[in-house]
Amino acid sequence: MDEQLIAAMDELASLPFAVWFLIGAAMVFFMQCGFAMVESGLTRAKNAGNIIMKNLMDFCIGTVVFMTLGFGLMMAEDYIAGLFGAPNLDIFFKIDDPSVASSFVFNLVFCATAATIVSGAMAERTKFSAYCIYSLIISAVVYPIEAGWVWNAAGWLMGLGYIDFAGSSAIHMVGGITALIGAIFLGPRLGKYKKQKDGSLKSVAIPGHNLAIAALGVFILWFGWYGFNGAAAGDVSQLARIFTNTTIAPAVASVACMIYTWIKNKKPDVSMTLNAALAGLVAITAGCLAVDALGATVIGLCSGILVVIAVEVLDLKLHIDDPVGAVAVHGVNGIFGTLMVGLFSTGGAGGGAGLFYGGGLGLLGVQALGVTAIAAWTVATMTLTFFLIKKLHGLRVSKEEEIKGLDITEHGLVSAYAGFSTTFEDLYDGIDADLGAIVPADAAVPIIVKTDKAVGSDVKMSKVEIVCNESKFDALKEAMNKIGVNGMTITKVMGCGAQKGGTEKYRGADIEIKLLPKIQVEIVVCKVPVRTVIETAKKVLYTGKIGDGKIFVYDVESVVRVRTGEEDYDALQDD
Amino acid sequence: MDEQLIAAMDELASLPFAVWFLIGAAMVFFMQCGFAMVESGLTRAKNAGNIIMKNLMDFCIGTVVFMTLGFGLMMAEDYIAGLFGAPNLDIFFKIDDPSVASSFVFNLVFCATAATIVSGAMAERTKFSAYCIYSLIISAVVYPIEAGWVWNAAGWLMGLGYIDFAGSSAIHMVGGITALIGAIFLGPRLGKYKKQKDGSLKSVAIPGHNLAIAALGVFILWFGWYGFNGAAAGDVSQLARIFTNTTIAPAVASVACMIYTWIKNKKPDVSMTLNAALAGLVAITAGCLAVDALGATVIGLCSGILVVIAVEVLDLKLHIDDPVGAVAVHGVNGIFGTLMVGLFSTGGAGGGAGLFYGGGLGLLGVQALGVTAIAAWTVATMTLTFFLIKKLHGLRVSKEEEIKGLDITEHGLVSAYAGFSTTFEDLYDGIDADLGAIVPADAAVPIIVKTDKAVGSDVKMSKVEIVCNESKFDALKEAMNKIGVNGMTITKVMGCGAQKGGTEKYRGADIEIKLLPKIQVEIVVCKVPVRTVIETAKKVLYTGKIGDGKIFVYDVESVVRVRTGEEDYDALQDD
Amino acid sequence: MDEQLIAAMDELASLPFAVWFLIGAAMVFFMQCGFAMVESGLTRAKNAGNIIMKNLMDFCIGTVVFMTLGFGLMMAEDYIAGLFGAPNLDIFFKIDDPSVASSFVFNLVFCATAATIVSGAMAERTKFSAYCIYSLIISAVVYPIEAGWVWNAAGWLMGLGYIDFAGSSAIHMVGGITALIGAIFLGPRLGKYKKQKDGSLKSVAIPGHNLAIAALGVFILWFGWYGFNGAAAGDVSQLARIFTNTTIAPAVASVACMIYTWIKNKKPDVSMTLNAALAGLVAITAGCLAVDALGATVIGLCSGILVVIAVEVLDLKLHIDDPVGAVAVHGVNGIFGTLMVGLFSTGGAGGGAGLFYGGGLGLLGVQALGVTAIAAWTVATMTLTFFLIKKLHGLRVSKEEEIKGLDITEHGLVSAYAGFSTTFEDLYDGIDADLGAIVPADAAVPIIVKTDKAVGSDVKMSKVEIVCNESKFDALKEAMNKIGVNGMTITKVMGCGAQKGGTEKYRGADIEIKLLPKIQVEIVVCKVPVRTVIETAKKVLYTGKIGDGKIFVYDVESVVRVRTGEEDYDALQDD
Repeated sequence: MDEQLIAAMDELASLPFAVWFLIGAAMVFFMQCGFAMVESGLTRAKNAGNIIMKNLMDFCIGTVVFMTLGFGLMMAEDYIAGLFGAPNLDIFFKIDDPSVASSFVFNLVFCATAATIVSGAMAERTKFSAYCIYSLIISAVVYPIEAGWVWNAAGWLMGLGYIDFAGSSAIHMVGGITALIGAIFLGPRLGKYKKQKDGSLKSVAIPGHNLAIAALGVFILWFGWYGFNGAAAGDVSQLARIFTNTTIAPAVASVACMIYTWIKNKKPDVSMTLNAALAGLVAITAGCLAVDALGATVIGLCSGILVVIAVEVLDLKLHIDDPVGAVAVHGVNGIFGTLMVGLFSTGGAGGGAGLFYGGGLGLLGVQALGVTAIAAWTVATMTLTFFLIKKLHGLRVSKEEEIKGLDITEHGLVSAYAGFSTTFEDLYDGIDADLGAIVPADAAVPIIVKTDKAVGSDVKMSKVEIVCNESKFDALKEAMNKIGVNGMTITKVMGCGAQKGGTEKYRGADIEIKLLPKIQVEIVVCKVPVRTVIETAKKVLYTGKIGDGKIFVYDVESVVRVRTGEEDYDALQDD
Repeated sequence: MDEQLIAAMDELASLPFAVWFLIGAAMVFFMQCGFAMVESGLTRAKNAGNIIMKNLMDFCIGTVVFMTLGFGLMMAEDYIAGLFGAPNLDIFFKIDDPSVASSFVFNLVFCATAATIVSGAMAERTKFSAYCIYSLIISAVVYPIEAGWVWNAAGWLMGLGYIDFAGSSAIHMVGGITALIGAIFLGPRLGKYKKQKDGSLKSVAIPGHNLAIAALGVFILWFGWYGFNGAAAGDVSQLARIFTNTTIAPAVASVACMIYTWIKNKKPDVSMTLNAALAGLVAITAGCLAVDALGATVIGLCSGILVVIAVEVLDLKLHIDDPVGAVAVHGVNGIFGTLMVGLFSTGGAGGGAGLFYGGGLGLLGVQALGVTAIAAWTVATMTLTFFLIKKLHGLRVSKEEEIKGLDITEHGLVSAYAGFSTTFEDLYDGIDADLGAIVPADAAVPIIVKTDKAVGSDVKMSKVEIVCNESKFDALKEAMNKIGVNGMTITKVMGCGAQKGGTEKYRGADIEIKLLPKIQVEIVVCKVPVRTVIETAKKVLYTGKIGDGKIFVYDVESVVRVRTGEEDYDALQDD
Repeated sequence: MDEQLIAAMDELASLPFAVWFLIGAAMVFFMQCGFAMVESGLTRAKNAGNIIMKNLMDFCIGTVVFMTLGFGLMMAEDYIAGLFGAPNLDIFFKIDDPSVASSFVFNLVFCATAATIVSGAMAERTKFSAYCIYSLIISAVVYPIEAGWVWNAAGWLMGLGYIDFAGSSAIHMVGGITALIGAIFLGPRLGKYKKQKDGSLKSVAIPGHNLAIAALGVFILWFGWYGFNGAAAGDVSQLARIFTNTTIAPAVASVACMIYTWIKNKKPDVSMTLNAALAGLVAITAGCLAVDALGATVIGLCSGILVVIAVEVLDLKLHIDDPVGAVAVHGVNGIFGTLMVGLFSTGGAGGGAGLFYGGGLGLLGVQALGVTAIAAWTVATMTLTFFLIKKLHGLRVSKEEEIKGLDITEHGLVSAYAGFSTTFEDLYDGIDADLGAIVPADAAVPIIVKTDKAVGSDVKMSKVEIVCNESKFDALKEAMNKIGVNGMTITKVMGCGAQKGGTEKYRGADIEIKLLPKIQVEIVVCKVPVRTVIETAKKVLYTGKIGDGKIFVYDVESVVRVRTGEEDYDALQDD
């Protein structure tokens, strides 16, 4: 065959991969959906709309700044000193050049992945506007520069033979480190860490509101990851190898995590195992082409255990609140996976060989250098970014906004699940520790109670029924405990009276609220005087605004405690 | 190279695109899922099963009629006068001809998209059988004919150089206009518009029940849209251009909408921004190949704002109730996007050049002509269709069915979310305005109350506890207000007694209901005589059927209003 | 053209299909997500986390054993007597051979589909560890061996010309039969079948908790099925034919099922129609390449009705409890679809011709033989498997665990939907029939009541308010009925007292529960003495543990029954 023909046939051979490159990019776009589902599923319902909005907008804002600035900084042919490209507007002028347009779409969706990882770690307490600013900066500057080092043909890490095929370090580690910095700057969610009597902090679980969509998100991410890791494959052999590794690593990681949590906690942990699948995917991303099935197995095995340890160290030891485990999944496993390439790379199409495959320590050194450089860049730029946002704009919502939830306070969205009834979850996740000050000082001082020592069946018993705002419950309970009332029954009710509902808008139309959510607390007392209960409740509940609530008192004829058979006075005393 | 070889290589070069054509069609199919999620998420839980069923069945019914009639009408080679094809059964006889089978699958999934758009606008009040008839007609005749104009090689608009690459007009505008006609024929949902004292109508928000799956749907749609816009690309350059534009337009639209709603309402609106992403996608669909990145940016920018204005004009000014914004997203932006091609088309592979790219007014004229012609066809045929359905079959469910929800009344599905507890949302969305007549006339006449003016702590106070059906709440509340009772506490309870539950079936097995959902309304009165409350409640609640409810009266010892500290009689008076 | 060139061009022509083969495999992987959503959506919320975990882990465990054992057994070139391959570790040593790596990924995702089908039929009552063991065995041995018969080039069924292109029998029938065996070994869920007075069993509906995600799952499955059926296509003509059939069959099946259930039950059934779409997909899987559009139409039509009949025969006649219809969808339609190829195969690329297309009875015989052989193998191996698991390890959770739900008992997951409030669904699904023994014998014996016959308005009426654990409700209700109390009002409340919440962990952190879910049962009595109510309740509720509950008694001033206007004593008697 003549040369012209060979060239033509080479081009034909590359065509399916050029198409697949874009299909893969669409699959990576779909990962935005996966992140949105995982993150909203693992956090509380009152913030679901906010998380979705953050995940949508980091992609959209990222697109705007990546097309105007980031794309040039990262991929410009005019690349300066191996460090950054000269900004250009190529996508506006060279859209017909598929090498520009394909590369733009492809690199944009990867950039957006780095940005969106952070959202989960900063969930449930970040100002939406602050998040928009952060995502603008990471997509415009921070990501494009370090990603150019790795993937621009003239990038300095590329030149050194650094292997990070699909971005364990350039994307996931960067996202994970940024998530860590963000979480530290923000501080934990209210009630996440509770001061114990010995002064230590106890981590309190804040369960996610929808594990079904969290799992959906994980499956979508795994599906999209075949595009994430595979899109840049150049031939079928590479693609098959990448798909194999991208299957083995997360599967082995999930099995390892399941067994590990089963042994450790006596039960296999669902949400942790979902995290482990993602950890395996993150860890194999750098070496998906470079390692073989054995490497993928070992990397998966370690990542599935590593993610559990990392989640627990962060939460239980360091008291850094990362609601969805982004730091452990993306940060820790991003670093781990990139370094492992230095050990398991088989050499060949995927790059130089690693230590265990006869390549010596050279590649491991380059991998360590790359990880260090990218991490240093990320720490420096993102610390500055969050520092400036915090100083100049504010990073965190107020306590009141956090308790109410970001859906209503940041977006005027009354509920992402209108019509569903919610429990008291948000009340008993420990936020009282932080909100103690809301109890008026004098109410918190125990009232001296003259015990009316009348014992026997003739004793006067009364039911005090308090209808009040839900947000007062913790304070009320604490105050009641202080005057000796421990048993109470709480019901979610709707109140209808003089108080008017909010005036939020939904799709432009006013939301009319005629019934307001309240709680009804029933307390039956005998020893503690009714008057004491009433006065204490009044002090705790008083704000002076319409809707503070009412207190009703009824006569009680008799009371029986089932367990002991005790009646009346005795039935109402603590054992 | 000889000619034979060149032909063979051209065929090879087209092969990846022939495969991608079908992958793209599968992605378009997946958009059915996106629509189902968006539409059920943005409406109420009591209709979720119905919406899913409608979205599934419009595709399935569409398939049956498209294979027997629509496909021939649209794509037959034997195309009459540029207007319609001669019906054929090619898919049954020429399945091995890939140009037939591929084209069938491809055109079918697009046809189904046009049909399914309408479902959201007609949600929550349309008879399921009427919807089936509508979807049969649009898929068999209405869509195939106008789509043939645009995409059949012999279609008259195709001949004029009309550019609508993937269907801003042929699909989305048609769906959007049909949605508009359907919504007008149906009228608004009960309680959607409330007559004010000045005679004007006030739009009442009816929030969707699951924003998480609505967002999921939007992400699925966007993902599928890469197939929708891209499937027909002929080479990599085209595909890359399409992917670029299909990314930029919705991203810019979302950012524009976020900023616009932020400024306008002080808060960035979640569900509107989700709509904006779709609006950007719709608007770029016609010109996804014809315009460049600048055009995509401008089109996206405008569509993101246009959708908000359109939603509000329709809802607040025209009082047309479109629960999911289908008219604004698909109709308005479908027209807008198609016309914009007349301005921004760059010429070249995507068709003639537009006004801003040196092509003069010609293309704009053709675009306007095409939009007008397709819109006129749609208005004519669909108005006739809905008119006939309404006259001959009935279009809308009864008020009672609408209040109960279409899941139970149309499908015997007790709840799409069995086991979840719901709030009173459906009660306070304003339907009382429409249901006033349910309050018996004499109960609505204020009863003259002899005030027992006893003031002081010795006054007799009573709690009246009414256990009744939820659907009576609005009438009860209104009647109570008329006799001077304004404060009440409402609790969701389950009643267990003589009344038997329904006898629906689930997957062939009977559903046993031993506990019936009721509400318990607690009213504490002093000034208003207990007897008046009881008699009024009896009148309102009476239907003569088992399950009308019971009324209990208890003595109340004392009452305290927290805000004012008032007690007993005073605590029960309005401020 | 010379031979070398022809060979090179043939290779080029196969390239897009080699890429598509892997894209299709990724789509089949995504079907795991579809199964997880369908199955969790169609079962109860208390088991959602468990189902997700099962669906994730059967894939992950399957991967581990398929790469070490199953892959060799199924696809080894060294295939013994047409029956099984010699185990090898090719994926570890030949990853660079795309025919190995691609085949591994492809066959693994199909293997996992067979495994995961079973999960739904065994839902809500299977020990998680038992499920892990089962999935290990099916993926390591059972599936690989029979699938090798069909798809290994040296398999004996392959040799006979057996046609099962994508696995109606090899995958779906195997999964469906295994589901049947598993469901039989397990027995029905508590409360699923209720003994009637005539000794017959009545099937009680146990509705799924989230039809929206069930529908999502169906759409994802359908989307993935284009990969499932199409991945192995060798040219565009084949692919187009497969896509056409894979669209027509489920669409026709859904329409048929909708009409059938509409006629049969007066209403079109949502969850059954969703099943029908899947049934159509399963039935067309064997013949997706072999049949034409007419065949697909007929196959779809029958499968849509067949699935309803099969679900009802299994449930109502055979009393086999398959919560999601896996046996009917995959088992029955897998067999049906495979046999239909013997009638409708057109001959040609898809294999020999069937009876209706001039091929005689030969193919039908081969199809019947194949179905029988594979079914026999599955029945033998899986019966043994479940028998051994049941004997040696235990297959089913305890009654108490089943009632509490598998999320909490198997995984320590308090709720997959933290923060959502649930109804009493789980209480009134009929489990009392099984739990009768929980009522202490003496409490169940009617207490002789001395009726205090005081009639008139002066009669003493009392409200007995019982706060107790939800799980006691059925027993309490039964005991109350026995002493003549039929009316009661039940409210979900939260109790706060001496009892401590559980000590589960969520992502490593302790879950603090300060409020415990309780129910409050209100009973107003007049004829039945208060003391009798109290003593009966005490007996039923007593366990001796903290948290047994309290009973309060209040005076009632008057009672009105709305329907009859009866007051006080009369209002409290049954009609």
